[in-house]
Amino acid sequence: MPLTRRDVLDTARRLVADYGLGDLTMRRLAFELGVKPGAIYWHVPSKQALLAELADELLDSVPEPSPRKRWDRQLLQLGTDLRAALRSHTDAAELVAAGRATSLASSQLGKSVMAIVQRSGAGERQASAARDALLHFVIGFTFDEQSHESLVRHGASPARLGDSDRTFDDALAVVVRGIVASARPSAS
Amino acid sequence: MPLTRRDVLDTARRLVADYGLGDLTMRRLAFELGVKPGAIYWHVPSKQALLAELADELLDSVPEPSPRKRWDRQLLQLGTDLRAALRSHTDAAELVAAGRATSLASSQLGKSVMAIVQRSGAGERQASAARDALLHFVIGFTFDEQSHESLVRHGASPARLGDSDRTFDDALAVVVRGIVASARPSAS
Repeated sequence: MPLTRRDVLDTARRLVADYGLGDLTMRRLAFELGVKPGAIYWHVPSKQALLAELADELLDSVPEPSPRKRWDRQLLQLGTDLRAALRSHTDAAELVAAGRATSLASSQLGKSVMAIVQRSGAGERQASAARDALLHFVIGFTFDEQSHESLVRHGASPARLGDSDRTFDDALAVVVRGIVASARPSAS
Repeated sequence: MPLTRRDVLDTARRLVADYGLGDLTMRRLAFELGVKPGAIYWHVPSKQALLAELADELLDSVPEPSPRKRWDRQLLQLGTDLRAALRSHTDAAELVAAGRATSLASSQLGKSVMAIVQRSGAGERQASAARDALLHFVIGFTFDEQSHESLVRHGASPARLGDSDRTFDDALAVVVRGIVASARPSAS
């Protein structure tokens, strides 16, 4: 069977999930696929482009929240699901934080957040600010979590005390409350 | 003159600022300092510990906002100054996002945010959530900016359209508005 772009992406995702971002090389990827490195470059122009594609797919895997929920609950759901998606793979938050070629603005996830906020009556500028606040907070928080877990695994830092789910929920609620307050026509 | 811990940190900071995080090695650092690599390990136990120290110093360099300003303005100021500090060095946001050994909670900057929010009458749990929302948003936003700028420099992505200062200010205002809404005793 000829090598497909899908094979390349799936195997790269598995390597990152199993061994972390630092161990993904085009040579390693070719070895895993049983092909010469040149065969991979036929499907993706560079390692950077490959990482960007993986990052975009990861963001796109976050489900759309049910539109029957209250809109602020939809945002809480989306933030929680994004963190869960990032935490399901080793180094996924770093991949998404560093690897995207497209901006959050043009991602499907970014568009979903904007649509939810705009359905509440907010204008486009308010919806963009909501999207940026929500997604950068969630990605920033989860990147910090995963970096720290990696330090702990390598014995370079003690584990943190406290319940990180509760810490996340509390801070996410702050951000969503700010989105609600900013979306009101009376917001200063 | 004998090598001091200060020499090691200052030279490491300069190397990161000039060449980026990826090019900092203990060997390179030793070469710059004109010493053998072993001499460096006498002052810092590992490269990871060195990066953590640099990250903590960078966070600590953000000035405390004037307590005579309104407290929400102090938070806006602190967020803006943190972004400026991160943007003053190549890869500084990545360094802070990935390299801290201590948590944001125990950083001086984290304590400053908590103190500002608690002076408004908020409780400790609300102040912690405010700190996490604000700092993870700013670091996440700035890391995304710097990662993207690095892709643009390497020709791997087109430059983004739009005014990133305005984008940042708008989203920071959302987060701070959420902190204000959450700090009120009536917050749900």
